[in-house]
Amino acid sequence: MAERTEISTYGEFGLIRHLTRNIEFQNASSILGVGDDAAVIDHLGRQTVITTDLLIEGVHFDLMYTPLKHLGYKSVVVNLSDVYAMNATPTQITLSIGISNRFSVEALEEFYEGVYAACDRYGVDLIGGDTSSSQKGFIISVTAIGEIQPDKVVKRSGAQKGDLLCCSGDLGAAYLGLVFLEREKKIYLENPNIQPDLEGEDYVIRRLLKPEARKDIIEFFEQQNILPTSMMDISDGLSSEILHICSQSGVSAVIHEDKLPISEASRLAAYKFELDPTALALSGGEDYELLFTLKQDDYEKITLNEQISVIGYITDASLKPMIVTKGGNKHEITAQGWNAFKTT
Amino acid sequence: MAERTEISTYGEFGLIRHLTRNIEFQNASSILGVGDDAAVIDHLGRQTVITTDLLIEGVHFDLMYTPLKHLGYKSVVVNLSDVYAMNATPTQITLSIGISNRFSVEALEEFYEGVYAACDRYGVDLIGGDTSSSQKGFIISVTAIGEIQPDKVVKRSGAQKGDLLCCSGDLGAAYLGLVFLEREKKIYLENPNIQPDLEGEDYVIRRLLKPEARKDIIEFFEQQNILPTSMMDISDGLSSEILHICSQSGVSAVIHEDKLPISEASRLAAYKFELDPTALALSGGEDYELLFTLKQDDYEKITLNEQISVIGYITDASLKPMIVTKGGNKHEITAQGWNAFKTT
Repeated sequence: MAERTEISTYGEFGLIRHLTRNIEFQNASSILGVGDDAAVIDHLGRQTVITTDLLIEGVHFDLMYTPLKHLGYKSVVVNLSDVYAMNATPTQITLSIGISNRFSVEALEEFYEGVYAACDRYGVDLIGGDTSSSQKGFIISVTAIGEIQPDKVVKRSGAQKGDLLCCSGDLGAAYLGLVFLEREKKIYLENPNIQPDLEGEDYVIRRLLKPEARKDIIEFFEQQNILPTSMMDISDGLSSEILHICSQSGVSAVIHEDKLPISEASRLAAYKFELDPTALALSGGEDYELLFTLKQDDYEKITLNEQISVIGYITDASLKPMIVTKGGNKHEITAQGWNAFKTT
Repeated sequence: MAERTEISTYGEFGLIRHLTRNIEFQNASSILGVGDDAAVIDHLGRQTVITTDLLIEGVHFDLMYTPLKHLGYKSVVVNLSDVYAMNATPTQITLSIGISNRFSVEALEEFYEGVYAACDRYGVDLIGGDTSSSQKGFIISVTAIGEIQPDKVVKRSGAQKGDLLCCSGDLGAAYLGLVFLEREKKIYLENPNIQPDLEGEDYVIRRLLKPEARKDIIEFFEQQNILPTSMMDISDGLSSEILHICSQSGVSAVIHEDKLPISEASRLAAYKFELDPTALALSGGEDYELLFTLKQDDYEKITLNEQISVIGYITDASLKPMIVTKGGNKHEITAQGWNAFKTT
């Protein structure tokens, strides 16, 4: 970066004013934003959905290979994904950051560029937050607010025996992006003169660094008049999320290996790293796809949408959650689905 | 502590379930809480007020002299204070924490005890959050949600020439608590065998470690049918907050040194540390009292309340914000009110 403006030039209040100076509200419900003790929202008869996430440098992201703009974008998107997972429409976010003085104002502007890009794309307003110093590392806390008609809320607990188990998009790519970037980091640290070889890995890298939330799926449900019986977003891996839905709904599930959506790019990358694409789909994590259950009657409607895969169905709680392999074998799905799957 | 249970015993989901297992909602507006992708609130025709704060170990608190239970309590209270500062009633909070493995489950339980004590006292529901590991230190992010009738919102920007400038409680004590505990820490580090001498300092220490939010003042406004013209909470010091109200309202102000509310305990403590009580009241910070402006017509009503002091009045923007000393001298109020005051 050519310029470097110290954060101290602005002071706490000046900094937040500077970073938020161009905000224009997109939602009628955003009544009062940054600059007072609290923001004000009017939900005009709808219910409010609220979710929050804490992202910590060194735990959730590595700035060695994460561009700040992408990080800003992703910090917003992972929270919006939780709002969509309730079948709701996100409308506002608050953003708090803790920063050490190793960051310049220009670096923060880059981060906020990503935040605003996500706000624009998803139609949400940044309405408040907090800026503080940190002794070490970059700390990000986002709270996302959304709205929903009271009778449209979809929880994790509504799945019933016989329901179809579905997911959006494809699985396992983000984890491959992580494996790839960690390898490049290691190579770079050993020899900084070697140029990174990103050939052919753009898809898996993008899935890790700049994920999208499935706004399109929620809009599709609305258009098709579909109300899933249960739903959650896939952030920790498919196996783990299936177990959440099963335990919260008091049911069990069967999925089929050959139905798991895995992109061609992921298969190629997995092959290169000698990893099992199925294992990655089951427990890769950070895919931010939606996992949901539907009444069988809705089957016809979803065949229209190539972004939705039926991967299995809901069974009785007396059975164990199982995956049927391509070879026809059955394995129990466990929270560490990956390991369990590999060792049986 | 007698027992030490490692956090890893529970795992992320087990831990949050364990820490939130006894939650019972106090508000009809709390529809869905911990355990799904997001929480759900129904504000039943009222507007929603939302505010968020990030508290970072080593920046905002020192665990050497901050009991975890108090820290939990304070983390909630400082956010509720912002909700009251909008003239709203807090109803829900979300809480995210980042923790390193130096903390045991018992330590977290203590922290949550304080969180729940504050929730109980102020009638708010904990409805969600996030638990994650941190590489270093304890990170706390609280978002508080409140409700308000649309025509009752009090912003920072409504003060008008001639309005009374008032504050609640007394000022400067929390900073004295900090000075005191920092001194005790230093003595302890030099000689761990010396017992701390807390004699007579309970008030200033309590004001720092376990502040309260001014729910009573907001209830008093409601009972007396008072609507302040502007309001904010005093977290960074009186001088700084007066300047915020003046700049956001496009006005100026005059305050009188002899009207500043300072407790007897603070005067004694200040005397002991050779600090100027007025300087501390102006820029001590962390008092979490309310600063507000009232129409002169409301004067009679507030004389009933010993917890409210009239400290000055609002003037025209063409004048500078001033403090009139006991000796009758005038000094300009600046953001670093304390230093400026001492050097003129």
